[in-house]
Amino acid sequence: MRRSVGKQADPDLGMLTGRVLFNLQKELFETLARRGHPGLRPRHGAVMVYLDAEGSRATELSQQSGQHKQVISTLVDELTALGYVRREPDPQDRRAKLVVPTALGLDMMSTSDAIVAGIERRHAEELGEDVYAGFKRAFQRIAELQVAWRERIPGQATGEA
Amino acid sequence: MRRSVGKQADPDLGMLTGRVLFNLQKELFETLARRGHPGLRPRHGAVMVYLDAEGSRATELSQQSGQHKQVISTLVDELTALGYVRREPDPQDRRAKLVVPTALGLDMMSTSDAIVAGIERRHAEELGEDVYAGFKRAFQRIAELQVAWRERIPGQATGEA
Repeated sequence: MRRSVGKQADPDLGMLTGRVLFNLQKELFETLARRGHPGLRPRHGAVMVYLDAEGSRATELSQQSGQHKQVISTLVDELTALGYVRREPDPQDRRAKLVVPTALGLDMMSTSDAIVAGIERRHAEELGEDVYAGFKRAFQRIAELQVAWRERIPGQATGEA
Repeated sequence: MRRSVGKQADPDLGMLTGRVLFNLQKELFETLARRGHPGLRPRHGAVMVYLDAEGSRATELSQQSGQHKQVISTLVDELTALGYVRREPDPQDRRAKLVVPTALGLDMMSTSDAIVAGIERRHAEELGEDVYAGFKRAFQRIAELQVAWRERIPGQATGEA
C-alpha cells in the first residue's frame, strides 16, 4: 500500500492534531471575521486565548502559550495596532507593563470563547456527551504526559543526549 | 475566576490541539535532528507526512495536507535544497512533475514514522491501550465531522453568509 493511502486510512496523532487545529482555526477566524473581527489571524491566538480582562503580563502570556517572549511582544504590537489591547503600567510592579484588552478586545474574547464552545457542543452532540467527555479527558492527559516526559528526560527536552 | 486560570483547568479543544501538536512537533524534530536530519522544520511536515516512496504529485500533496499549491511548491524547493526530494517527469503525464524522495528522503520518512509511532506507543502505555484506541477513534471522527460540516454549510466554508 502506498504510504499516503495507509496514512489517510489510519492517521497518526500528528496528522490528526494538525488537521483538527487547522480546521478549528479556519472556522473560528472566519466566524470572528463575520462578527466584526476581520483583522485577527491564527498567530494571534497565543495572546487571545490567555488574555485576562484584568490584564496579563507578557511573561505570563509567554509561559501559558509556550511562545517566546519576543514572539508575544510582536503579537501584542500587532493587536495594539488593531485596537484590541494596550500596554499599561502594572499597578503591582512599577517597572512592569500589563497587556490590557480594550472594549473591542473584551468583545473579541467573549465572542471567540463562545464560537469555540459552540464547535465543541456540536462535536459532543455528534459523538455523544459521554464519548466527547472521555475524549477530552484522554486528550488533557496526553498534554500533561508530554510535559512530564520533557521534564523527566532532560536530554530529550533540550535536543542533547 | 480569571479567564486564564479557568482555561488552564479546563482547556478547550483549540488549546489542547495547539499544545499537543506543538510538543509533538518539538519532540519529533529534535529527535530527527539527533538522527541525522537537522535541517527539517515543522512546516516541512505538510510534504514529509504524505510523500510516497514512488513519488507524489504536488496537487496530491496540496489536497492531502490542506495547504495551497504555492505553499507546497515553496516547501518542495526547500526540501530539494536540503537534499530530501527531487522533481522528476511524471511517467503517466508528460506535462506533470513528480516529487520523488531521495535516499536521504526515504530515510527521513521511515525515521519520522518510527518516532511518531514510538510517541503514540508511549501514550497508549500510559493511558491503557483501550483508552488510547478510543481516543484515536473519537479524534478521527471529529476530523471527519469538521470536513462534513464545512461541506454541508457553504457559507461557513467560504466565509460568506
